[in-house]
Formats: sequence, C-alpha cells, structure tokens
Amino acid sequence: MRIQEIKFSGQDSKYSILIGKNALGMLPRKLKLLCPNTKKVALVIDRKIPSKFKKILKKKLNKYNLLIIPFSANEKNKSLNIVNSYLKKLLSKNFNRSDLIIAVGGGITGDVAGFVASIFKRGINFINIPTTLLAQVDSAVGGKTGVNSIHGKNLIGSFYQPRLVISDTIFINSLPKKEMICGYAEILKHSIIKDKIFFNWLEKNTKSLLIKKSKQLAYAIKKSCEIKRYFIERDIKEKNLRMILNFGHTFAHAIEVQHNYSKKITHGEAVLSGMMLATRLSVIKKVCSPTIFLRIKNIYLKNSLDYTYRKYSKKDSVNKLFQYLKNDKKNNDNKINFILLKNIGKTVLPNKSKISLNNLKQLNLSIS
Amino acid sequence: MRIQEIKFSGQDSKYSILIGKNALGMLPRKLKLLCPNTKKVALVIDRKIPSKFKKILKKKLNKYNLLIIPFSANEKNKSLNIVNSYLKKLLSKNFNRSDLIIAVGGGITGDVAGFVASIFKRGINFINIPTTLLAQVDSAVGGKTGVNSIHGKNLIGSFYQPRLVISDTIFINSLPKKEMICGYAEILKHSIIKDKIFFNWLEKNTKSLLIKKSKQLAYAIKKSCEIKRYFIERDIKEKNLRMILNFGHTFAHAIEVQHNYSKKITHGEAVLSGMMLATRLSVIKKVCSPTIFLRIKNIYLKNSLDYTYRKYSKKDSVNKLFQYLKNDKKNNDNKINFILLKNIGKTVLPNKSKISLNNLKQLNLSIS
Repeated sequence: MRIQEIKFSGQDSKYSILIGKNALGMLPRKLKLLCPNTKKVALVIDRKIPSKFKKILKKKLNKYNLLIIPFSANEKNKSLNIVNSYLKKLLSKNFNRSDLIIAVGGGITGDVAGFVASIFKRGINFINIPTTLLAQVDSAVGGKTGVNSIHGKNLIGSFYQPRLVISDTIFINSLPKKEMICGYAEILKHSIIKDKIFFNWLEKNTKSLLIKKSKQLAYAIKKSCEIKRYFIERDIKEKNLRMILNFGHTFAHAIEVQHNYSKKITHGEAVLSGMMLATRLSVIKKVCSPTIFLRIKNIYLKNSLDYTYRKYSKKDSVNKLFQYLKNDKKNNDNKINFILLKNIGKTVLPNKSKISLNNLKQLNLSIS
Repeated sequence: MRIQEIKFSGQDSKYSILIGKNALGMLPRKLKLLCPNTKKVALVIDRKIPSKFKKILKKKLNKYNLLIIPFSANEKNKSLNIVNSYLKKLLSKNFNRSDLIIAVGGGITGDVAGFVASIFKRGINFINIPTTLLAQVDSAVGGKTGVNSIHGKNLIGSFYQPRLVISDTIFINSLPKKEMICGYAEILKHSIIKDKIFFNWLEKNTKSLLIKKSKQLAYAIKKSCEIKRYFIERDIKEKNLRMILNFGHTFAHAIEVQHNYSKKITHGEAVLSGMMLATRLSVIKKVCSPTIFLRIKNIYLKNSLDYTYRKYSKKDSVNKLFQYLKNDKKNNDNKINFILLKNIGKTVLPNKSKISLNNLKQLNLSIS
C-alpha cells in the first residue's frame, strides 16, 4: 500500500503528514532532508509503546546522538514540572536549535514533547509520531501543544508546528477498543462538520475501521487530516473558523468534568455524546432537520456506539450537565459559544450561536 | 512633538510601535481598537517604576478589571518559577484569551510577561510598554520572549508578537547613565550593520542622546526600530538574516560570562566592547578597512564610551576571553559564527564567516 502524504502550510512553516502502513520506514530519509544539521535527537516515547517499536526506532536513528526519554503518558504527567525536567535534560546534554525532539505516543506525549520543543531555545525541530488513532486524526494535526494546570486541561501551551508527522497504522494494531472509539469519534466529527461524502462512506465503513482494517484506516486518517487542515490553514491561531472543529466538544468537556475525568468515560465517548447533544440543540434551535439527528444516531446504534449519551435521556439529567459548561477557554463572555449543525457537512459559523445558560435550561435537550 | 508610529507585519500578526514623548496617552484609544473584547488586564510592572507612572497607568486602565503584578526585575527572577506563579495568578482570576497582559519595565519585564502571554491558553493579548532605552530600541522589538535557566540566559522562551508597543521617552528621564549606554550600544550597532547615514548622524548626535534630549531620542529609537524591523520581517524565527543583529554580541556574551554577569559590566558595555572586537576581527580577516575601525573607535573616544574593551589590549587578555565563546545558542557546531563588518552599514552574510577557536587563537585581536 502506498504511503500517503498530506502537505500543510501555515505561517512561515510547511510540513507533511505521512500516512499508512510502515510509513515509519521513511523517517531516516525525511530526517536527513528536513533536518540536515541535526546531530542530537531526543526521543520522548510513551513507556507503553511495545519494545519492538522502540527497537525499530533506535535502529532508524542510529546515526544520531540519541537521548531516550521514557514518558509515562497520563494527564497528571502532562504538567509544567515534567516540561521543566525535560528542558533541563536537553540543556544539560547541550541540545541546540538545529537538533531535534521526536515524540512517539498518543496525544499526551505529543502535546508535552511539542510544548517542550516550542519553548526550548525559542523553538527546536519537532517530529511527531502519533501512535493512537485519536492522535493520528486529531491532536497531531494543527500544532496545538500544551500541558494541564490545577485549574484545568491544556491551559498552558503554544501553537507550534512540527517539521513532520508520521502516522503509521502499524501502531493501531495494539490499541484497545476504547482507544479506537476515541479516534473514531473525531473522524466522525470531521465528516459531520465538513464532508457529506465522507459521512456516507463512514455509514458503510465504520465497522471496518473499528476492526482495524489498514486500508480503511489509512483512508479515514487521510480524510480527517485533510478536513482538519481546511480549518487550520484558514485560522491557524483559533480565532474563528477553527472553532468549528470544536463541534460537540463544549458538551464533551462538560461531560468529562462532570465525571471528574474518570477513566470510566473516555474522551471519545464524551465527544460522541457531545455531538449528539449539539445536534439535538441544532434541531431545537431549528437550524437542522430531525432526520439529520436520526442519521447520526443510526451510525451510533449500528456500531454499538451508544455510550454515555443515554445518561442524558431526561431533561433533569441534561440540565445537571449545564453547570459544567462554563469554563471552556474559548468562551469570551457569559454566553456559551456552541457550534450548531445545519446539515451533514455544514455548520453554522462560530460566534453566530451564543446561548446563555438560562436560555439553555429552558430547552429540552434530552436525547431519547 | 508628534508621536511616531512604526508598523510591523509578520506571520499572521500585525502590530505598531508608538514612539515619542507622552505616547502613553494613546493607550486607552488603541486598547479599545485592538482588544475590543478585553475585560481583564494584568499589569506586570517593574517595582522600580516611579509611582507617578503607576498612577497614570491605573487611571488609563480604570475601565478594566485590573490585576497589578509588581515584578522585581532581575536575572534571578527571570525564571520558569516566576512564569509559573504568574500563570497561576491569571488562571485563578479566570483570565481568557481575549484578555490582556501589559508589561511595564525594561527588557527583563517584557521578556517574562511576554513569555507568560505566549503560553497562557496558547496565547493571550500582549502589550509591551518598555521603559528603558535598551528595551525601546532592542528587546521590545521582534517578539523574542524568554527566561533564564541554570544553564544560561534566555534558554527557555518563544517567539511571540505583541499587539502593541508603546515607547514613551518620558520613562527615559529617570534612567541612570549606565542604562543609557546599554540602549545606546544597540542604537550604534543598528547604524553600523545597516545605515551609514544614521551612523553619520550618530557621529554628531551621540552626546544629545546621552543627555536625554527627547527629540533626538525619539529619532534614534525610531531609526533603531526600523532597522531591526528590516531584519526581523525577513527572518522572523532567526534562521539566517536576523543573526546580523547579533553583530558584536558573540564577543559581548563571552565578556559577560567571563565577568560572571557582574554588575560592574553592563550588557551595553559588553556590547560596545564586543563590537570593537568584531570590527577588529573583520579588519584582520581583511573584509573591512582599518579606517572603519577608527571611525567607530572615535565615537567611543569622543563620548567617553571607552569601557571594557581596554581590557583586551593584549593578545593574552583577548585569548583568555575565547574559552567563554562556546555556549552561544546560535552556534550549530564547533566553529563560531561571527558577524563580520564590511563597511559602515554593511556586514558579511551570516554563516559565511565561521571561525574555529584554534584559528581565532592564532590571530591578534588585541585592541590598542
């Protein structure tokens, strides 16, 4: 199967995402081309990555002075403390701007390593090798980096573009189902907000994705990256259009906070529920037809994706969620900025559907 | 006297620098225009700023929810710890991206506050009000932010553009002479690397600058900003051309390290000496005529700027300096990348004059 290449350009940086089975094989050649002056490489690698991949990577990087930094990827370690300790490691090894940091892991690993890269000597080369479906279709695309604070998730960070992203589907094979659903939720979101044809394809191919068929996975990752690129290139700093990518996420974040980020509900499950609530809100606000809501719901039902949203089948249970809606960092005032759906592939523009909490409470968002 | 406005554009950001006596008066109107959604303002202000200025600023910002953060500006407090404590303050006060951080102080204050702004929720509005001549002609221009590490100065940071810079010459009046020389050294550097006519003007007007004549100061600040802009807009991330701004600084940093950043030698004095050494090196390397060296030296002599460079009047004393040359973060290999001078207003291109330490030791750089 051919490796796909998606090119990004924004600000003063250009980079590619390589997608497909064994895309990792292209690392040495690309590295030589993109970072000709690199002598030292820091490999920030999730401890959970199977050792066979670690061996492959070591071999591919054997021409470089390699510093391996094993990272226990979890929300607690997504912290300024860890960032500081990595900065110190790099400084003590005398890394400079022409050297390189490579992240190998899921979204957390990429976010932390990318943030370190962005502030080390005001920016060192960064290559991201996302190993989860979620990271491949979402967090590794768009240059968001960051860490958590006691006040919330991702509150400290930067926009920083990598030199290269390699999304190799061989990593996907070892993922548990929960992780697959996390990635799938974002894939589905991309289709809903921008691409009706891709949504039609997902109506038929969701099962193939969930059972990890390489060809379908590569296609869905590529489509996802292309859709995300569309929004990012038009709004690199998330001032307007890019907020459409937030579809379903205002509710999703609230659901995660409501459950205290418990492992019982993954981010993907929260997003699936969030999209149901956002679509329901769109129907109530009369910008979207009820048949659209049913088409989306049918994908969930057909593929047993009916997780948390069932919790919100009563007006009372939805209303309890509302108190957690406030602290989204994209909100500029007391009204909440929802992304509403018009049709499959089309949303209302951001900032056109701000709704106050009081108004929200009067609606009946419950999902039957 | 009319307020001058210099416009910058780079990446996806545009901003202005306002220069002149009482330029501060334009803050409220500009703020309303540039940050219409701002409700909260964090004022990071150097504790040494006279209280009359603090009062003026408070009055000008009385329409906003104001958080005053007094900052003891020194190299020790230019740290990730301080940055973290400020991030926490902003988070606990629920600042969001459309709010604003204003820095009032010298380069250290701007660097710290700017760095906080760059990583707070991936970037919050930032306005810089530099109060020293050095900050007005150099550090407040170009979007470099950062803090120190135990491994060296400015090793952690980012490139982040402000929304506005206000360089009001009323702040200059309270500056001690050492501070004036710091700023002057960079002004002179700008003329040497890019603008022969400005250099001619400085040959006549240096005294007026050092005795703080407003009109001459405003002109020199404006010219400095324009010259710096020329380099920055062509190379925002300091990959090549911008390194010319480093003229004299490779030696200057070494001098500062040699003296352990003692207060006895200010950055400006180190830069003045560094430029002498760099010009001397240019003469020895036969890219620059000895008469150029003499013209620069004459400015020093006429204005009693003959500080540290006299320490390097013997081959032995210069050679002792070389061991401190290594750790410049712009160096990519063991050779040292010097910016050499061809003529007043013209340098050799960066990366065209890399010189090894061994080669350097064989030369006689001593300044008589």
